[in-house]
Amino acid sequence: MYYRLIIHSIGNILILLALTMFFPVIWSVKDRSSDLAPLLLSIAITLIVGFLMRQVKPEGKFGRREGFAIVGFGWILIVAFGALPLFLSGSAPSFTDAYFEIMSGFTTTGATVISDVESLDRGILFWRSLTHWIGGMGIIVLSLAVFALFGGGASMFRAEVPSLVPEKIMPRLKQTAMALWGIYTVISLIQVITLKLAGLSFFDSLIYTFGSMGTGGFSSRNISVEAYRSVSIEMVLVLFMTLAGINFSLYYRAVQRRSLRAIVTDPEARGYLTILIGATFLVTGSLVISMKLPVLRALRYAVFQVVSISTTTGFSSADFSLWPPFAQAILMILMFIGASAGSTGGGLKVARLLLLFKYMAKQIKRVARPRLMIQTKLGESHIQDSVVHEILAFFFIYVLLFVLGGMVLAATGLDLISAFSASVAALSNIGPGLARVGPLSNYSLLSPVAKWTMSFLMLAGRLEIFTILVMFSGSFWKR
Amino acid sequence: MYYRLIIHSIGNILILLALTMFFPVIWSVKDRSSDLAPLLLSIAITLIVGFLMRQVKPEGKFGRREGFAIVGFGWILIVAFGALPLFLSGSAPSFTDAYFEIMSGFTTTGATVISDVESLDRGILFWRSLTHWIGGMGIIVLSLAVFALFGGGASMFRAEVPSLVPEKIMPRLKQTAMALWGIYTVISLIQVITLKLAGLSFFDSLIYTFGSMGTGGFSSRNISVEAYRSVSIEMVLVLFMTLAGINFSLYYRAVQRRSLRAIVTDPEARGYLTILIGATFLVTGSLVISMKLPVLRALRYAVFQVVSISTTTGFSSADFSLWPPFAQAILMILMFIGASAGSTGGGLKVARLLLLFKYMAKQIKRVARPRLMIQTKLGESHIQDSVVHEILAFFFIYVLLFVLGGMVLAATGLDLISAFSASVAALSNIGPGLARVGPLSNYSLLSPVAKWTMSFLMLAGRLEIFTILVMFSGSFWKR
Repeated sequence: MYYRLIIHSIGNILILLALTMFFPVIWSVKDRSSDLAPLLLSIAITLIVGFLMRQVKPEGKFGRREGFAIVGFGWILIVAFGALPLFLSGSAPSFTDAYFEIMSGFTTTGATVISDVESLDRGILFWRSLTHWIGGMGIIVLSLAVFALFGGGASMFRAEVPSLVPEKIMPRLKQTAMALWGIYTVISLIQVITLKLAGLSFFDSLIYTFGSMGTGGFSSRNISVEAYRSVSIEMVLVLFMTLAGINFSLYYRAVQRRSLRAIVTDPEARGYLTILIGATFLVTGSLVISMKLPVLRALRYAVFQVVSISTTTGFSSADFSLWPPFAQAILMILMFIGASAGSTGGGLKVARLLLLFKYMAKQIKRVARPRLMIQTKLGESHIQDSVVHEILAFFFIYVLLFVLGGMVLAATGLDLISAFSASVAALSNIGPGLARVGPLSNYSLLSPVAKWTMSFLMLAGRLEIFTILVMFSGSFWKR
Repeated sequence: MYYRLIIHSIGNILILLALTMFFPVIWSVKDRSSDLAPLLLSIAITLIVGFLMRQVKPEGKFGRREGFAIVGFGWILIVAFGALPLFLSGSAPSFTDAYFEIMSGFTTTGATVISDVESLDRGILFWRSLTHWIGGMGIIVLSLAVFALFGGGASMFRAEVPSLVPEKIMPRLKQTAMALWGIYTVISLIQVITLKLAGLSFFDSLIYTFGSMGTGGFSSRNISVEAYRSVSIEMVLVLFMTLAGINFSLYYRAVQRRSLRAIVTDPEARGYLTILIGATFLVTGSLVISMKLPVLRALRYAVFQVVSISTTTGFSSADFSLWPPFAQAILMILMFIGASAGSTGGGLKVARLLLLFKYMAKQIKRVARPRLMIQTKLGESHIQDSVVHEILAFFFIYVLLFVLGGMVLAATGLDLISAFSASVAALSNIGPGLARVGPLSNYSLLSPVAKWTMSFLMLAGRLEIFTILVMFSGSFWKR
């Protein structure tokens, strides 16, 4: 392990981070608000530390383990320095809270510990939401980069192979990354304009664009999207959240080939849209039957919440913790499924689940006819058994982290539903859970142990678990 | 598929079933109670149907698929005919209830829909509990038989290979089966005597022996073991439940070699005992800290409930649905883990989880060093990767059935905790769940849909899932 190389690289990342902190400064200057000094101080500290780390002379070859260490430690430090503005301005009551909030931001979770968001200065609010936008696209480019650097070996990236990295993208990594950023930016700009037209202020349009394109979920209002009571705003958000939950390399291919065929025929995209439609149907039915809501109103609530949860965004347009158990059960299951691989969303990912279902059917058939040979296919591509086995292991670890997380949270005094919904809300990067941590509530009352546990779960979920867990393995550190 | 062979074989099984129904008749005669006529009528119906089915001339070779069909349909029919005494005597208000109750009996689940157990005649009570004892040992012999007949191919039995069928047992199948029955009977006799000495009546001693040796959980009292408020009875039950949760082939080896070494050195047995001790420690702590119970009383409740849930028995000595969330979370997790492979208990099984953990550690290590070759070992035996992959698939399907089951139960109107705890309580063959289906409650108020769903989950869990699911596969039915 070449530590100097790691330190040097993370230094570079911190300098980049400091530069992005200049964006919120614009709002502070415009508002002449009190968050200007804390923001500038944070930039200064981050720049100095970044430059100091950059001074460490890199040595040795850039290998697989160095890559993982940079990603893991880099993420942990980015969050630490990104939390400075909130901590120094007093927006978050403690460093634990500031760290939680910015971890929630960069991992595009959207869980908040700030009870009164509306009292924050706009510079801080802007920074908090900007981390969603950066984090969302960051994870896509990161996957792409690590995959290209280390080949097909890393489980988490191989798991995304079927849809994330088509054969032709590989050789032109830098170009692909730039193209993806471009597509992301263009869609974001369109969303800002659309939200402005739907009646939001320019500032709020930015906040909700960051929240939905990054599938994050931070809002500028205490009761999230419910505050506006506007069908048009909700439907714009539904559209763009849905778009953000689709594999971005499909957009790239669609642009290249000037045809939507790539998207329409992709098995994961189809599965993803089928889940959205099916779940909306079930939740609407549940709201109509159990809560006697009019069909159209039920549909409006249902489609918004299903899309918001499926894409792992976490906006709310109603307090779904008061919905019937069946509707809540559906939402809980959507929390585990998550969005598409190669999107900004979290969760297990639709592609993985499709493969698990196919593998399951195969195993069941083979009980009766053990000599039966069945190829696992996803769309046109044959999937190697080793890929499916890694996904199975991924599934097991995912469930394990969910259970352990829920147990620790229950030990800190939360009831079962709050504890376990908070655990999956963190692990799948959703944001709100149920009961005491429902959409109209927040995580401020949790104990510090609970907050650090959730921060860990958010990071593990965002980095597809293996990246983080591998650091706990002794052999990782050996030369 | 040779249907005649299947029908003929199930006829034989029904005749055997009818013969076992004579045991409860003894109590009816002794008590001169009103359940005598329904019992005799049930025996007559079962015998007639059994003989009629037996008349069907068997043709064709006995193959793998015939084996599965006999096990699957056989179990479904045994429960249907076994439910007759409850239905005909009016002890269960409907056939749905009677079927649920006896499915719960034969699968050694112990979930009940009878609100007032104490009002039942002793013949019916005896029959209900006897199904636990038959079902518990039946499943062990069944595993052994199917494994021997079909070789190492069937996932569910291969999954139990490491501990259930050691190389030397295989060739002497019949002898082994007889020996296992013998060991089971001897341990049961010792328990009856011990319970009698601890103060129970002879009848109750039998009931609780059937309940604990089969890891079932049916009681003769409405509030289960709490009714006796006796430490000695509780501790006797703890001891024998623990014994019933150990792989019975270990006892066989211990008898053969006249040494307990086989048990003490078995990795699954060690894992199982470690889990029992660790969970008891955590639950005791939780009860002391959150409920301010004296340490000894907390320990008494904790050890009983941990052992009762871990072994998937489901007796209760206190209303654990009122315990702190952390203690409940621990119990929920124990419900999934279950007992040892080759025991009478249900759940995922400790051996499977041990292998999953080892595989997980291996996959994590291989993220950093993809060329690393690591053998999966359990104790001294090398485990083939294909076995682990089947266990991974098993785990996925288990979680899937749990989630789908919980969803259906929530749709019938249960709250989330009741619905999902009932789902795992059925799937892992435990019995009581939490909240509305907690230990002092029962399943009588559930809708018929919920009861049939749970009956299906109990059967799927007991037959290790694949046996049942394979019947839903189209290729299973093709010639």
